[in-house]
Amino acid sequence: MSSAKIRLGMVGGGQGAFIGEVHRIAARLDNRFELVAGALSSDPQRATDSAAELGIDPKRSYASFEEMASREGKLKSGIEAVAIVTPNHLHCAAAKAFLKAGIHVICDKPLTANLDDAEALATLATESGLVFTVTYNYSGYPMVRQARQMVAAGKLGNIRIIQIEYAQDWLATNIEASGQKQATWRTDPDQGGAGGSIADIGTHAFHLAEFVSGLKAKSLLADLDAFVVGRSLDDNANILLHYSNGAKGMLWCSQVASGKENGLQLRFYGSRGGLQWSQEDPNYLQYTPLGEARQTLTRGGSSVGESAAAATRIPAGHPEGFLEGFANLYRETADLIEAHRQGDSTESLVPTVSDGLRGMRFIEKAVASNQAGSIWQSLEK
Amino acid sequence: MSSAKIRLGMVGGGQGAFIGEVHRIAARLDNRFELVAGALSSDPQRATDSAAELGIDPKRSYASFEEMASREGKLKSGIEAVAIVTPNHLHCAAAKAFLKAGIHVICDKPLTANLDDAEALATLATESGLVFTVTYNYSGYPMVRQARQMVAAGKLGNIRIIQIEYAQDWLATNIEASGQKQATWRTDPDQGGAGGSIADIGTHAFHLAEFVSGLKAKSLLADLDAFVVGRSLDDNANILLHYSNGAKGMLWCSQVASGKENGLQLRFYGSRGGLQWSQEDPNYLQYTPLGEARQTLTRGGSSVGESAAAATRIPAGHPEGFLEGFANLYRETADLIEAHRQGDSTESLVPTVSDGLRGMRFIEKAVASNQAGSIWQSLEK
Amino acid sequence: MSSAKIRLGMVGGGQGAFIGEVHRIAARLDNRFELVAGALSSDPQRATDSAAELGIDPKRSYASFEEMASREGKLKSGIEAVAIVTPNHLHCAAAKAFLKAGIHVICDKPLTANLDDAEALATLATESGLVFTVTYNYSGYPMVRQARQMVAAGKLGNIRIIQIEYAQDWLATNIEASGQKQATWRTDPDQGGAGGSIADIGTHAFHLAEFVSGLKAKSLLADLDAFVVGRSLDDNANILLHYSNGAKGMLWCSQVASGKENGLQLRFYGSRGGLQWSQEDPNYLQYTPLGEARQTLTRGGSSVGESAAAATRIPAGHPEGFLEGFANLYRETADLIEAHRQGDSTESLVPTVSDGLRGMRFIEKAVASNQAGSIWQSLEK
Amino acid sequence: MSSAKIRLGMVGGGQGAFIGEVHRIAARLDNRFELVAGALSSDPQRATDSAAELGIDPKRSYASFEEMASREGKLKSGIEAVAIVTPNHLHCAAAKAFLKAGIHVICDKPLTANLDDAEALATLATESGLVFTVTYNYSGYPMVRQARQMVAAGKLGNIRIIQIEYAQDWLATNIEASGQKQATWRTDPDQGGAGGSIADIGTHAFHLAEFVSGLKAKSLLADLDAFVVGRSLDDNANILLHYSNGAKGMLWCSQVASGKENGLQLRFYGSRGGLQWSQEDPNYLQYTPLGEARQTLTRGGSSVGESAAAATRIPAGHPEGFLEGFANLYRETADLIEAHRQGDSTESLVPTVSDGLRGMRFIEKAVASNQAGSIWQSLEK
Repeated sequence: MSSAKIRLGMVGGGQGAFIGEVHRIAARLDNRFELVAGALSSDPQRATDSAAELGIDPKRSYASFEEMASREGKLKSGIEAVAIVTPNHLHCAAAKAFLKAGIHVICDKPLTANLDDAEALATLATESGLVFTVTYNYSGYPMVRQARQMVAAGKLGNIRIIQIEYAQDWLATNIEASGQKQATWRTDPDQGGAGGSIADIGTHAFHLAEFVSGLKAKSLLADLDAFVVGRSLDDNANILLHYSNGAKGMLWCSQVASGKENGLQLRFYGSRGGLQWSQEDPNYLQYTPLGEARQTLTRGGSSVGESAAAATRIPAGHPEGFLEGFANLYRETADLIEAHRQGDSTESLVPTVSDGLRGMRFIEKAVASNQAGSIWQSLEK
Repeated sequence: MSSAKIRLGMVGGGQGAFIGEVHRIAARLDNRFELVAGALSSDPQRATDSAAELGIDPKRSYASFEEMASREGKLKSGIEAVAIVTPNHLHCAAAKAFLKAGIHVICDKPLTANLDDAEALATLATESGLVFTVTYNYSGYPMVRQARQMVAAGKLGNIRIIQIEYAQDWLATNIEASGQKQATWRTDPDQGGAGGSIADIGTHAFHLAEFVSGLKAKSLLADLDAFVVGRSLDDNANILLHYSNGAKGMLWCSQVASGKENGLQLRFYGSRGGLQWSQEDPNYLQYTPLGEARQTLTRGGSSVGESAAAATRIPAGHPEGFLEGFANLYRETADLIEAHRQGDSTESLVPTVSDGLRGMRFIEKAVASNQAGSIWQSLEK
Repeated sequence: MSSAKIRLGMVGGGQGAFIGEVHRIAARLDNRFELVAGALSSDPQRATDSAAELGIDPKRSYASFEEMASREGKLKSGIEAVAIVTPNHLHCAAAKAFLKAGIHVICDKPLTANLDDAEALATLATESGLVFTVTYNYSGYPMVRQARQMVAAGKLGNIRIIQIEYAQDWLATNIEASGQKQATWRTDPDQGGAGGSIADIGTHAFHLAEFVSGLKAKSLLADLDAFVVGRSLDDNANILLHYSNGAKGMLWCSQVASGKENGLQLRFYGSRGGLQWSQEDPNYLQYTPLGEARQTLTRGGSSVGESAAAATRIPAGHPEGFLEGFANLYRETADLIEAHRQGDSTESLVPTVSDGLRGMRFIEKAVASNQAGSIWQSLEK
Repeated sequence: MSSAKIRLGMVGGGQGAFIGEVHRIAARLDNRFELVAGALSSDPQRATDSAAELGIDPKRSYASFEEMASREGKLKSGIEAVAIVTPNHLHCAAAKAFLKAGIHVICDKPLTANLDDAEALATLATESGLVFTVTYNYSGYPMVRQARQMVAAGKLGNIRIIQIEYAQDWLATNIEASGQKQATWRTDPDQGGAGGSIADIGTHAFHLAEFVSGLKAKSLLADLDAFVVGRSLDDNANILLHYSNGAKGMLWCSQVASGKENGLQLRFYGSRGGLQWSQEDPNYLQYTPLGEARQTLTRGGSSVGESAAAATRIPAGHPEGFLEGFANLYRETADLIEAHRQGDSTESLVPTVSDGLRGMRFIEKAVASNQAGSIWQSLEK
């Protein structure tokens, strides 16, 4: 680990943003990145102030991502990677600019604001040979990794049932009307894209189900609602899924479920056992081998495997949380970039642009199904 | 309460049955019934032995329900009520026989084996003027009553989301192949009817959602599976629901969810708050008023209302369970019968034949929707 | 089970009492007893009214237990057993009267109001050859039985640590001042004896620790308080224990722990594993084998042994509660009486007069230790 | 926050250590410190290797803390603060050396290996005017802060009962015999001091009880054990406490409680309500106002106050854990050092040398009480 820190830039994430600070902490946690440049806000004053607050050299605080990509791509010690944490509709153009400048990309989800953009971006990213990771951050939790490893090892037998939900309540009232920043862009089709809750949180849930189960969803059927009057994007989605092996799924995501904070929960039931994990209690995994006593596996405990152990920093009973899980994706991105430095490659569990593309297809098909009156839509290309 | 105990007969529930003994304990718990007659098994020897074991006079142990209805209807001190606890396909004929003999009926769910039977039976029951209750027993739990009362009082505001699930795992393997009695008839269309898990447990969940919310489901869409090879009735069902007020629902029922014992859970989210109740932890109700601290209401506690209090026997912290909830329906049926004795009537929360009929419509429409490829089906007549 | 029901009488438990109704439901649940006589209240009118309400023949409703013992002992079909559910100070005289009349005794705890009485009563009971059971009812819970069986089977290795607590809050304010009946006698030394919370609930906890662990406490050290102004008996007790094998214990009981309803919890830690059980969630037992994943054993599940299974009525996932656990003691008392009818004997887990006596020693020594400034007191005779 | 990062050194914490890495992550999380020097191991090679791995300039990797204190104290840009994370017996000498060099100290707990050292050190620290904080890290958890604020605001009324426990199982077997590094020094009186579990974890629990309640313990009574054969320091402690206001406490700490990982739990019961917090589920606080529904307060939620909010980085439902709580002490230490830079002072909740001293008195008195056969010992000076 004595090799030089990776020089990182950031687009978006200025003062008042939530996710930008999360990315910065995640980048810092394992001491693998150094934040040295930014186009932190579309508001020039805020961009400058934010950079100053973060100790970024004023000369490397840019007014636009275009300028930043262009100049940093030419600097001798320009950034090696960029974190893109803007509203969704800006992801695509920004990512393209940095790829073209030869800079690795860490992009927040959903990948873009529409499927066409996502496909174009995925092609570009693949052709570039650069690292492109997407922060489906919940896949970084150790016990999600443990679940994946157990499924792969056959602990559940053949998976029959997948129940996934992601419920919040922060949009239970019309807070966008009062200008709350997070809410405003997420409920605006021009900035958020065609999906509301399905884009903001449903994509996480959809990704995790495939990540853990190792299965691909082949079709979906959706019933979307915008319960809050005046809202044009969905704030609640009831979705049925068919998986490649015949497994059946339900996916519920909601941002109007009064009393739910960040209620992401995964459940898998197979012919030999079941697994349950809840993001709000992330250090534990419930395992129910058919016909035996229920087990609770604990992060850091003696019963978990290598995959979870590799994603763990401190012992069992000392809770790790959201930031540590998020930081795992940064650590793994660092490993990929380090391998790239060496002209090498490495296996990784970190989500990439192809996962981001798949999430966009989920959004588009859910919208299409709903518009057609809840008709099955294929998720295969 | 000093009036004479109600003379009760039973059809089905002989040795080896599960639900018959539950009905007997429920009938006994509050000392309102006296079991005096039975047609406990279609196997004559088992019928006789079962009656002897229960202390029933051998002269009132019958070989068939027809004989029992006929004779008890004429006895001076014949039974006043009968509990029907046979496999589903026998409910209708038995219930009709007792109604015709002027005897009140307590019928297990689902009401019958098909919708036509159910409609005919409902008509007969209504015309008879007799008491006809259906043991959707989970509605007898005090905290389910509390939930209903809170919804009615507007604690949730306008209900937007209903999430109901009922998951078990006892049919995760092909136990009917080895002759397990409970499994055999429930997985046999000739005895169970057109529905498997949707009939056995889905009807409970469907009923509770309407019971608590005060809403009616107006349409459904279903995706059914029989995961265990060789099984002809569904053992897993993913169902979407539309409710009368615009609320959206998901209902999952399964008998192959490895690790689930009797996982019935109800969740309601409205514009002002949410409620969650789990049958396996029945003495508590989670209440989440929007924007306030989460609350846990406890059965017998100072924060619960009259409806729950009336269904409670012992103080908070002294858990009541399945049998007590079941017994509440018997107690309330006794109240109805007592009122009938007096030529009177009384308000009651106990499910009746019309609830039973509604459950049959749920089953038929779920099967129809599934057969049509998951198409919306109306639940209105 | 076809033998005749046991004819039961009751002393105490008239209108307004709590525990009397619990005993009656428990007696009724398995259909082994028939309540036919009573001295239900020291207030003659209430005694008469209570008997009428319970359907007891007015001729067998007595004004005093002396009269009842005397007459029932001579009747041809007099009661075979009596349940004594009065305030503590009356237990001894009543129990003696029935023993002398040849009638089996089911006595609520604590056994008497002081240790001397308890010793005399235990001697009399033993010499009588009659059945004498004491309703340390929590020992009737299936998962408490499971815990006991697992300890006996060596699952914990050598027990090192016993942590037991029993916390309530119903005496957190001075409710006895307003005449609340349950509170009044329990906080009155003349009726309750020398112990307050230690007698009312501490004895349960003390008994359970020995019941499950199979160990005997050899000494204790106590720090008692009466936190509510004007109260003369303890409402909170912090107690240290030394067990026969070198294990160390802590016992906390309180009736002023604001927010606790009936928080009885048992924890045992040995060289090979641990066990945890909570009365408010009684259908589950937490088992933590050292170095392995935590397990949750469920009542009725496939992982529990014979002892728990024998105390279980309905399948896993269908919660049983306080009444069912209490009823197990009645059922087992019925088995003992049935054996006595046959001139036989039978093994049983139901607590008897010797357990009651041991509880009295616990109370007396706790009071003595506290008075001496928290000095160790021997619990050996 | 744009002021220069604080230059930090570290004593101890080389390869193979646990707590050193925790301190480093905590220091890094909020970007307020920069690790620039170290005496990371008493083994010179390991010291050098560890420094290299951490990117510390080899010239500032020292073979001893004496050399480090001496040289860094004279450097123009020498360290401003040092984190001392060695075994207990080295804390005192190291801390003195840095204080004398004018360098602020962040010291792990317990403060020293004996009470005399602690008193001398506390005097020196106070006279120095330097910042001296002690990492009773659990006090950094937001919901512990919330509990403290609620108690101060009178939510519990007068506190009557304090129940604190801290149970682990990592010393349930004789792992020190096999040379496990963490175990070896903690079970060795020469390195750990007179206390085993009471020093390692009991001091945390003792501190938290006072921190939250705002009360001081005035006396204690202890029953200590070393259950594992061959162990000379306690691995289990049962302790009774008397608090200044008349409240009574129990403190259990154990490192042999099979199945417990890091089970630190705090419970407080007062005349008006109760509070419960568990370190393994740290984002929630149970609040039970007497006679009302139980409440669950969540970190980041709308029901928590300023104190918790100030210690929170991300929204409710996004779990924070052990590292974030630990980092709060570093952040607050940074605030103190920043104020010191300005010649200013600031209020803070971070534990200081006087808390460390109090912990040492707790250890010494617990040992003394146990040796005297569990006799009350004063905790007042």
